[in-house]
Amino acid sequence: MKSQMNIMVKKFGGTSVGSVERILNVAKRSLDCQLLGESPVVVVSAMSGDTNRLVALGDQVFPHHRGPAYDMLVASGEQVSVALVSMAIERLGGKARPYLAHQLGIFTDSMHSKARIQKIDTQKILQDIEQGIIPVVAGFQGVDDADNITTLGRGGSDTSAVAIAAALNARACEIFTDVPAVFTADPRLVPKAREIPKLSFEEMIEMAALGSKVLHIRSVEIGAKHGVRIHVRSSFESREGTWVVPEGESMESAVVSSVTHESSTGVITVEPLPKGTEVLAKLFTALASKGIIVDIISQLEIESGQRLSFSVGTDDVVAATGLVREQFGSHVSISTMKDVSKVSIVGVGMRNHPGVAAKFFSTLAQNNVEIHLVTTSEIKVSAVIDRPLLEKAAQSLHSAFGLDQ
Amino acid sequence: MKSQMNIMVKKFGGTSVGSVERILNVAKRSLDCQLLGESPVVVVSAMSGDTNRLVALGDQVFPHHRGPAYDMLVASGEQVSVALVSMAIERLGGKARPYLAHQLGIFTDSMHSKARIQKIDTQKILQDIEQGIIPVVAGFQGVDDADNITTLGRGGSDTSAVAIAAALNARACEIFTDVPAVFTADPRLVPKAREIPKLSFEEMIEMAALGSKVLHIRSVEIGAKHGVRIHVRSSFESREGTWVVPEGESMESAVVSSVTHESSTGVITVEPLPKGTEVLAKLFTALASKGIIVDIISQLEIESGQRLSFSVGTDDVVAATGLVREQFGSHVSISTMKDVSKVSIVGVGMRNHPGVAAKFFSTLAQNNVEIHLVTTSEIKVSAVIDRPLLEKAAQSLHSAFGLDQ
Repeated sequence: MKSQMNIMVKKFGGTSVGSVERILNVAKRSLDCQLLGESPVVVVSAMSGDTNRLVALGDQVFPHHRGPAYDMLVASGEQVSVALVSMAIERLGGKARPYLAHQLGIFTDSMHSKARIQKIDTQKILQDIEQGIIPVVAGFQGVDDADNITTLGRGGSDTSAVAIAAALNARACEIFTDVPAVFTADPRLVPKAREIPKLSFEEMIEMAALGSKVLHIRSVEIGAKHGVRIHVRSSFESREGTWVVPEGESMESAVVSSVTHESSTGVITVEPLPKGTEVLAKLFTALASKGIIVDIISQLEIESGQRLSFSVGTDDVVAATGLVREQFGSHVSISTMKDVSKVSIVGVGMRNHPGVAAKFFSTLAQNNVEIHLVTTSEIKVSAVIDRPLLEKAAQSLHSAFGLDQ
Repeated sequence: MKSQMNIMVKKFGGTSVGSVERILNVAKRSLDCQLLGESPVVVVSAMSGDTNRLVALGDQVFPHHRGPAYDMLVASGEQVSVALVSMAIERLGGKARPYLAHQLGIFTDSMHSKARIQKIDTQKILQDIEQGIIPVVAGFQGVDDADNITTLGRGGSDTSAVAIAAALNARACEIFTDVPAVFTADPRLVPKAREIPKLSFEEMIEMAALGSKVLHIRSVEIGAKHGVRIHVRSSFESREGTWVVPEGESMESAVVSSVTHESSTGVITVEPLPKGTEVLAKLFTALASKGIIVDIISQLEIESGQRLSFSVGTDDVVAATGLVREQFGSHVSISTMKDVSKVSIVGVGMRNHPGVAAKFFSTLAQNNVEIHLVTTSEIKVSAVIDRPLLEKAAQSLHSAFGLDQ
């Protein structure tokens, strides 16, 4: 029944609904799809700039406040765009119904500003579709058991869209955005970067974790878990972009499918720490309790104990250093790097191709790029390097792994 | 129980929450009242300018659209101010809970953009008050049976506040606004205008109907029906303003309590119309069906049939004239006046004082103000006059009826 409906969830981001003209364009695209036999379900973000404006207002009234009132505040942006897109569809002669999270039934836990979706009612959407009505749903927001508005965190509209697609067993979830596809690297950094036609969920998750901003990582995780095929494409062009699909569906996997980077990260090195894992456990527990996310960790036994290096967000370097000093006093020497970047390669093909890490290191070595910290997984290799060398590193890796063409 | 709680509903208008500084001021005032033993329930409008911005966006997407999407759009303004006022109260150390209409349970009919309140749940508010929490409620909005957001029409936050006060059996409803009180006339027109300490509901209803913008007429009607005492006062000063109360409570009633005006109205005169009331019934039914509100009507038998004059809003003069022409063809002569004003006197004391109308006419005659159209009720006299004479007419009536001091 549901699959006969040919449901396509279409998520439009902030720039795609950033003006009256673009909102009318979203309405037209949705109606065109309906004419072609699709049953579109539209999910929208706030108009670009709106969420920033609301966050700034909130921060002026009560800095760093998080809770029901704050989520009510920032969720109002999606309320505006949902209403306007619905009106635009009606303006163009279609039928639309606007839904806020509480009206549809997008239930989440009560972790304000980073809530997780628990359940989505699909009954109203299915009724609308049967009547030729296009449901227009507010992304980013949910409702908890106490009827409070919750929000899913920045970029959460992607997550809303994929979760709705999963609940509806939709044919796919299309993410309309201001870039035409996912690229093999950031074209601003690597001019030879190319569009990737197909990616596996695993690769996309790694890329999102490693700094690619195209998709919100939670959305890809939900897509992977429920097998929702995600299509990242431009809201300003009609051609296809990048399909994110289960691994089996990918074309013959490239060994490396992309070079990803994060321009700004920080590294803290401490030595000598007392020996033993307990010491590390205590430190990382303390960092986590302050909300400091640790990315790469490298540990080495040395004569006088152990040497530890780890990377954190640039903004957290001072707090993390303070915490280390608090725990270990003046017995240790601490050095920090704030002006460093992270460059990574990602690809499911790595699993079956030995020597990828070796090639990664030798490429960087040939280009005189020193590595401060390294981490690897089954499908990625990451290194922290000096920021001025990031462009050279990314371009040479892109060439070395055959991504230039 | 409820009255022991000493509940005061406090409504803050758009200018009172128009900036971060003013929002913090609203929070402070509410907390100060709590310290003095009151149980405040705060009702807020959208930040000044916000509703206009949203209406303009909506009109660009789909001009004149009215329905669930439009009401969802414009209701987002109150969502922002409710959230910010709640955050501000918490910032200053108090406890607050933000409520949108659907969260509290402000149920209305489904007449979008002019919905009427049918029922308000007070349970959550009463629970909050018992726990020392200040409920902060979105004015202007409601929710219908189908869980759609509705709105009450411009100025509807006054109505929300008085209806909430009625449901809670509150001690009073305070309307905080950008003027310190209701005046005997508009001070911009009549420099000798004074603040009115007490007014009856009936007088305030007439004044609102005759052009006073201080209170939304529906709110006064609800106040009158449920005996909710309304206190209009400045949100920037602490002194008292105007109390609107049941008639018995008024001080010895002034014969005339105020001079009210509308700068801009239109008059249409048609003759000769065929004799008979049926002709008039048909015409006014047709005008009503086009949404044209007719204010004053004057009819006179003449030799060739009847002569009819009636006043409508300036914007409706062209449409109304067209309709008259459509109904009566070229057999009648139609004359219109677009540059005219209406001046009125209001006072419950008129009931027991004959000669008020005579004094009204003679005052205008002495000042050479010609009257185009007149209407009277038990507690008011209104006349349509040339706009350039409005100031002189209002000032001379203000003096003649002893309002200068």
